[in-house]
Amino acid sequence: MSSPPACPVPLAPEVIQLAHGGGGRATWRLLHEVVRPALGITGVSADAAELAVPPGARLAFTTDASVVRPIVFPGGDIGRLAVFGTVNDLATAGARPIALSLSLVLEEGLPIDVLRRVLGSIAAASRIAGVRVVTGDTKVVDRGRGDGIYTSVAGIGVIAPGVDVGPHQIRAGDVVIVSGDVGRHGVAILSVREGLGFEATIESDCAPVTGLLDALVDAGTELHCLRDPTRGGLSAALHELAIDAGVEIALSEPDVPVDGRVAAACELLGLDPFAMACEGRLVVIVPPDHAARALAALRSRPEGAHAAAIARVAAGTAGRVVATTVLGTRRLLDFAASEQLPRIC
Amino acid sequence: MSSPPACPVPLAPEVIQLAHGGGGRATWRLLHEVVRPALGITGVSADAAELAVPPGARLAFTTDASVVRPIVFPGGDIGRLAVFGTVNDLATAGARPIALSLSLVLEEGLPIDVLRRVLGSIAAASRIAGVRVVTGDTKVVDRGRGDGIYTSVAGIGVIAPGVDVGPHQIRAGDVVIVSGDVGRHGVAILSVREGLGFEATIESDCAPVTGLLDALVDAGTELHCLRDPTRGGLSAALHELAIDAGVEIALSEPDVPVDGRVAAACELLGLDPFAMACEGRLVVIVPPDHAARALAALRSRPEGAHAAAIARVAAGTAGRVVATTVLGTRRLLDFAASEQLPRIC
Repeated sequence: MSSPPACPVPLAPEVIQLAHGGGGRATWRLLHEVVRPALGITGVSADAAELAVPPGARLAFTTDASVVRPIVFPGGDIGRLAVFGTVNDLATAGARPIALSLSLVLEEGLPIDVLRRVLGSIAAASRIAGVRVVTGDTKVVDRGRGDGIYTSVAGIGVIAPGVDVGPHQIRAGDVVIVSGDVGRHGVAILSVREGLGFEATIESDCAPVTGLLDALVDAGTELHCLRDPTRGGLSAALHELAIDAGVEIALSEPDVPVDGRVAAACELLGLDPFAMACEGRLVVIVPPDHAARALAALRSRPEGAHAAAIARVAAGTAGRVVATTVLGTRRLLDFAASEQLPRIC
Repeated sequence: MSSPPACPVPLAPEVIQLAHGGGGRATWRLLHEVVRPALGITGVSADAAELAVPPGARLAFTTDASVVRPIVFPGGDIGRLAVFGTVNDLATAGARPIALSLSLVLEEGLPIDVLRRVLGSIAAASRIAGVRVVTGDTKVVDRGRGDGIYTSVAGIGVIAPGVDVGPHQIRAGDVVIVSGDVGRHGVAILSVREGLGFEATIESDCAPVTGLLDALVDAGTELHCLRDPTRGGLSAALHELAIDAGVEIALSEPDVPVDGRVAAACELLGLDPFAMACEGRLVVIVPPDHAARALAALRSRPEGAHAAAIARVAAGTAGRVVATTVLGTRRLLDFAASEQLPRIC
């Protein structure tokens, strides 16, 4: 009599259970068998990580929560978005990332395989950005109180020597540059979520902007302010800068790079491409005599190939963004009251 | 004809809407009229904050997500828990906090007044811990995809000079001390959530342990390892340490301080007080010749008045926690497979 063959496939797929958040053996196993290996965290567990900081470094600190839906979209996923969102926020302070933390809110019932894939994406994105997740926390909420997975990534970065950027540096006459075409991320999410059958797939621009920052710094560009135009898109970024710096911004609409498919999708749906989120673009504000150098530096990298000078800072009315249209007329750009699309990041 | 009197009360209470997460004007107003004032964040907005770090400082980095339900409980609320959870994780690395980040996941429909109260609690808890929230992110999820409010707080701390703690420092013969009675937080949450009418209210121990760390360091205590016994309680903390250090821990059950009401509640409900979460206790592991000094240092502060030596590190079997009971018998302490109570922090 032979024994029955071992079942090669688990009878039920592994899913997240409330016990995985309880702090007992199930939590320990989830962390040591799934989370830490996927992120490449080795050594003994601890509640905090010690950082190696270069002596004399100036540090920047930021955090970004990600609640994007769906968690996988053309050109990216929640893992890439979580890492690049934080890395790009550091870049807007002129900083390169040196360490990330990851906190997870998992919903009961999430397949552990999905968690593994998100963690794998976080690890891959971290490698691309030249940084690692060094500490974290994992919580579980009951079914119907989450949406699979929410992430929060905090990041610490070292500010490049000599860089001091912020709205306080913005002066009338400064030139506003964007590193590439705008609105891709928002439209990519919209197309997949609403099941819109655009002829060609529009991919998110989801990417780190750290390389663009390096190129600007290496070229000796005098940087006044940096911003990544995420939620609310280019329009919200320019409005926030105009408010914080107490200036008016004069935008030249025809100079703003917009992919033809993005423009077509927005026109079809009555959306404003300037208010659609980017996740891999940098808005760079420089004094006029550094504009050519900044453009050349950005264009020296593939992700900055379509960089363009799009606006000028004017004394004018604080907080106002005035656009010159393709017809040569002028209009006030609207600081949209509400989102065009919820949960895009 | 007189104009109608201005309505002194808004017709509908203000609640979080998806638009508050969209990155447009509604987001800007929420951040500038509610979030930043409540946290005392001033100056222009930026996506990252620059940190003031003392030269030569060694830094620790950690993060903690909070999904506790209900958000207000006897002795604390989600705001205090979020801040102290992170501050205490830093303390277990021997570090004092210098900066916090806050990311919020808000559910559509959350009354803005509740958000204000949570933010006020975060600000107050930060003041108590001697630190500030310097950067953050706020996202909104649709109704039924969250539970009012989830927080994630990351923290950076400066490690006290000369301190190098961790499981790698634990040696056979070391003494294990706990700074106060255990299990309060778990029982406090349980009592309010389940509507149990215990005769006396059991309050959470939710508090920062930073002052206890200071007392230990100021007394010149040689510290081998620190841990805060949160989810999974004292039992999970001891098991994790025994696993990571490759040692056995011999616990003396009668020496573990447990409040009489906590013990009674646990007995009534068939729960193990050693597996109930604490949120304001510190487990301290020191060489035997420093045990008296460590106890005196802890007891010099009100929150350490009930500090007690509870266990010894033995060579024994790695990962095992053996308890001597009040009857003098010995039993293996269980590393509970699942939580006794979900979402307690």
